[in-house]
Amino acid sequence: MELFEAIERRHSYRGAYHDSPVPESDIRRIAQAGIQAPSGYNSQDTTFVIVDDRDLIAKIAAILGNTPVFRTAPLLIACIVEKEPQAPEGRMVFPIENCAAAVENMLLAATALGYASLWYDGSLRREGRNQAIGQLLGLQEGLVVQVLLPVGVPLESKAQAAKKSFSQRAWYNRHGT
Amino acid sequence: MELFEAIERRHSYRGAYHDSPVPESDIRRIAQAGIQAPSGYNSQDTTFVIVDDRDLIAKIAAILGNTPVFRTAPLLIACIVEKEPQAPEGRMVFPIENCAAAVENMLLAATALGYASLWYDGSLRREGRNQAIGQLLGLQEGLVVQVLLPVGVPLESKAQAAKKSFSQRAWYNRHGT
Repeated sequence: MELFEAIERRHSYRGAYHDSPVPESDIRRIAQAGIQAPSGYNSQDTTFVIVDDRDLIAKIAAILGNTPVFRTAPLLIACIVEKEPQAPEGRMVFPIENCAAAVENMLLAATALGYASLWYDGSLRREGRNQAIGQLLGLQEGLVVQVLLPVGVPLESKAQAAKKSFSQRAWYNRHGT
Repeated sequence: MELFEAIERRHSYRGAYHDSPVPESDIRRIAQAGIQAPSGYNSQDTTFVIVDDRDLIAKIAAILGNTPVFRTAPLLIACIVEKEPQAPEGRMVFPIENCAAAVENMLLAATALGYASLWYDGSLRREGRNQAIGQLLGLQEGLVVQVLLPVGVPLESKAQAAKKSFSQRAWYNRHGT
């Protein structure tokens, strides 16, 4: 799919999925899009757990309240970052930025391949959900599930949420003018 | 350009640019890609200053040490966020994530249109640079330049930094196995 079409079609999907699995070749292309995202100092500090085990997905969905999008997802991609990364001498670390760039690449890749997904993020940090999911995924101490992406063929056709116009969010040479 | 090609071609460009300006139609397409990025609760809290005034670019480049990429850039896009956003009752805010998603979309858009760019981020927070640039861009109190993107036709042909392999960053159903 052409880039600008993927950007326009990407949307947050919360509905149910078709029962069909995501083929291995598509999983690899989506994950590869995440791997190729930029990261500060090319640190590549986001890692990924691809969850295609139905029992494991069911356990994760139960932690997340069995909402349709997780209960029916044939695939989850968990994005893992360090909780408290230490910056090397004279450098900074960008765990949130790097993870977000990888997520956006993967959302676009999923869209281009005909899937729908959801950037599930802040709600992971409620009620210890990311700890419970982290345990299921065998995360080592110090790592955390930062973002979770369900991926599948959507049962419902949805569009991107309405966005403000260019003139409401962008200006030339001076902010807000 | 096809999405996966744009993801593969995107790279961090630090060289000099051709003197040619970026046409208005391309500026709009790049900014629109940023506008269409996801944001938590669709808050759309990242805003943009498009800097195409040569004098203003020269002043910003001087703050940033007159490195080739800023000294020769025909266009800058400054991504603006709130320094300390307040979450509405029962919600969270995601200024860094939202900005990063917009940046990644714009980097891909710039790539697809034949430009090269750079995610200039942490270095803005050294030596009060973002404050000085924020003043030049007329930012209101409480706003900050979070990311700055130079955009132009690159003089040098560069490739994406080498990335670790799939097996070094992604696993099935259990982290690190």
